[in-house]
Amino acid sequence: MAHADLARSPLAPRRFPKLHPVDGLRLLTDASQSRYVGRDDFLLAVLPAGSAIAGVFTRSSMPSVAVDLCRQHLRASKGTARAIIVNAGIANAFTGRQGAQAAHAVIGHAAALLDAPSDQIYMASTGVIGMDLDPVPLCASLDKMMSSSPARDPWLRAANAIRTTDTFAKAASRQVKWGRHMVSINVIAKGSGMIAPDMATMLAFGFTDADIPPRVLQALLDEVNPKTFSAVTVDSDTSTSDTLLLCATRSKKLTGAPLRSIKDARLKPFRAALQEVMEDVAKQIARDGEGAQKLITIDVSGAENDQSARRIALAIANSPLVKTAVAGEDANWGRIVMAVGKSGERADRDRLSIKIGGHPVARNGRAIVGYDERPIAKHMRGRAIDIAVNVGVAKGPHAGTARVWTCDLTHGYISINADYRS
Amino acid sequence: MAHADLARSPLAPRRFPKLHPVDGLRLLTDASQSRYVGRDDFLLAVLPAGSAIAGVFTRSSMPSVAVDLCRQHLRASKGTARAIIVNAGIANAFTGRQGAQAAHAVIGHAAALLDAPSDQIYMASTGVIGMDLDPVPLCASLDKMMSSSPARDPWLRAANAIRTTDTFAKAASRQVKWGRHMVSINVIAKGSGMIAPDMATMLAFGFTDADIPPRVLQALLDEVNPKTFSAVTVDSDTSTSDTLLLCATRSKKLTGAPLRSIKDARLKPFRAALQEVMEDVAKQIARDGEGAQKLITIDVSGAENDQSARRIALAIANSPLVKTAVAGEDANWGRIVMAVGKSGERADRDRLSIKIGGHPVARNGRAIVGYDERPIAKHMRGRAIDIAVNVGVAKGPHAGTARVWTCDLTHGYISINADYRS
Repeated sequence: MAHADLARSPLAPRRFPKLHPVDGLRLLTDASQSRYVGRDDFLLAVLPAGSAIAGVFTRSSMPSVAVDLCRQHLRASKGTARAIIVNAGIANAFTGRQGAQAAHAVIGHAAALLDAPSDQIYMASTGVIGMDLDPVPLCASLDKMMSSSPARDPWLRAANAIRTTDTFAKAASRQVKWGRHMVSINVIAKGSGMIAPDMATMLAFGFTDADIPPRVLQALLDEVNPKTFSAVTVDSDTSTSDTLLLCATRSKKLTGAPLRSIKDARLKPFRAALQEVMEDVAKQIARDGEGAQKLITIDVSGAENDQSARRIALAIANSPLVKTAVAGEDANWGRIVMAVGKSGERADRDRLSIKIGGHPVARNGRAIVGYDERPIAKHMRGRAIDIAVNVGVAKGPHAGTARVWTCDLTHGYISINADYRS
Repeated sequence: MAHADLARSPLAPRRFPKLHPVDGLRLLTDASQSRYVGRDDFLLAVLPAGSAIAGVFTRSSMPSVAVDLCRQHLRASKGTARAIIVNAGIANAFTGRQGAQAAHAVIGHAAALLDAPSDQIYMASTGVIGMDLDPVPLCASLDKMMSSSPARDPWLRAANAIRTTDTFAKAASRQVKWGRHMVSINVIAKGSGMIAPDMATMLAFGFTDADIPPRVLQALLDEVNPKTFSAVTVDSDTSTSDTLLLCATRSKKLTGAPLRSIKDARLKPFRAALQEVMEDVAKQIARDGEGAQKLITIDVSGAENDQSARRIALAIANSPLVKTAVAGEDANWGRIVMAVGKSGERADRDRLSIKIGGHPVARNGRAIVGYDERPIAKHMRGRAIDIAVNVGVAKGPHAGTARVWTCDLTHGYISINADYRS
């Protein structure tokens, strides 16, 4: 089931963004007919020799074949890459030895076509768990793509080819100063259910032409991911396949000493822009949560530390009762109190305060007497819902804070997920 | 909203069970008109002097006033009780000092009426969080109840008086040999949403006439609770108010030395019967999960230890994707694999096996080739769904096992919870 029939999320951006070119990168797509019919479902991103790559993957103990191989290749190649291959429709997870053989066949074929070592080819697969992946149509697609001429809209095609239940193609792009050059940072992603940290996205791929060596690239990704992709949750369900890869073609050089650390001052604008792009796409994933009618932003402050704040924020974001209350446009802050309470993290009931849409509703462990419900009711009828909780444990600059994004839990989620496979 | 309009769960037992009498106990109910109109919403259980009591409470860091007071009274009274008071409709949680004053007023009034110390009076409150509780109508109800004559069907009235969104009254009863006597074990409970360990129930009250001293009673409850009430989850949301109290009127004496330990051989039949009764009522809570159409029993084996098995079982039970798949009658075991993977517990992907309705579907990390889907499809169309997972980490008598119960996630859950408060 391709879900081509799903209506575009009401929270979707008006249009697909304009993406800046990334020097040296080639994006190719094809309809492999592996599972979906009549649509592109296969992406090949070809990178110039010497490209750097960094990755973050699902923490599931049941990772897909592709996740296993990405981890191996990252180590073996010391963070270098010549291509990324992505297929949509079949996750190639829980497929045993056959699954590994299929992935090896596809990767080996791509390596031969590109005359590159296999461990510089990265694969990502998304779709149904437990279904066998046939390498034959994918290898045929690789042949076809390698001899095809470049498309006019490669980014839109690429973002579309990796979709499963997504109702819109997800991407963001920035240009940023890089020494004497301008460089691009582009990210495409897919994911709308089975979304929970860590990782938050199912699949996301970032590309830049900045000259960033592998170790620095990985450190950057590890820094930015927790505040962006791993701060999104749709249904608390962590996929077997979550993969975030960030590639640098390295064609735009910096002057001066080689980059050794993410603290290098020359990286500052790039870091900020990377965070912007990743946050933009991460929020698009929450906006496309299955059945989503409202985007919920949850801010937690006053916690013991940032990690504790993040866990509390995720407990609120994953609470079915909070999410259904938002769906019902009910400012039911009692359920927010409940969710803080169940997080297992330190929180002071008698100092807890809550704001909804910026309006205080509870303070020092009880409702604010006679607060005006009208502006809050109006806020709840909107598309963007803001919940802010101060848990009253710490104050000042050392108090822990976190922000996460999620969506409401609606009849749409049930409809989509009660008849996905069949 | 009293949810009097909610249809009785299709998983409800055919009728309310016949409960055996408990020597010395008086159950009184009344319509206090605190929040619900036209129905009993208040229960007073009067116990003879010298009764023992044990309790288990929510692990929420945002406990209700009543939970705070129960914990204090258990300690102060050394596990003795003269009465339990339960009000439905208002949880008296997150109500600050006013909430504590209201509870003290009601408890003080009951203590005066019964000529008992306040710390032998236990209160439980369930309903909306953050709403103030008015002690005046509750005190008036206490006066009325104390002068009323006994009802013909006190157990059904009691089980009904404590309901909120429950679609049926929940109770179970057993008689069991106790030295030369027969004693009764009765449990009533309420709860259908905001149900997650620990505790699993919102409110449950057990009564027996066996002579069990407080310390032994508490040890018994601590032993049986994890396998019964704390093995039920509806929506992963832990209430602020979860309370399980077990009382012994102590009128039926054992011969011989005083009971000192739950390992005393004379307790054996009682322990087994207590587990039966508590399991029976716990499963009734899962059967009445908001919107439930199917009761799901999840067995995990082959884990590192029992606690690990329990966490894996709860990860499966709380997965929205597993629960919606069951709602859709889809034997989507890929989602079960996903849920095992996200549990954070040790599991061997390449040895994992899964049975649905007793039929093997996956073994050694992949689907069983060509398994017959028909009996499984038939099982999925039934009301009782059995999922068994061996996670392949340990074998033999030391391997960890656990069983938990939950229900499917349906449009009914969304409908009930998107318009609860208003």
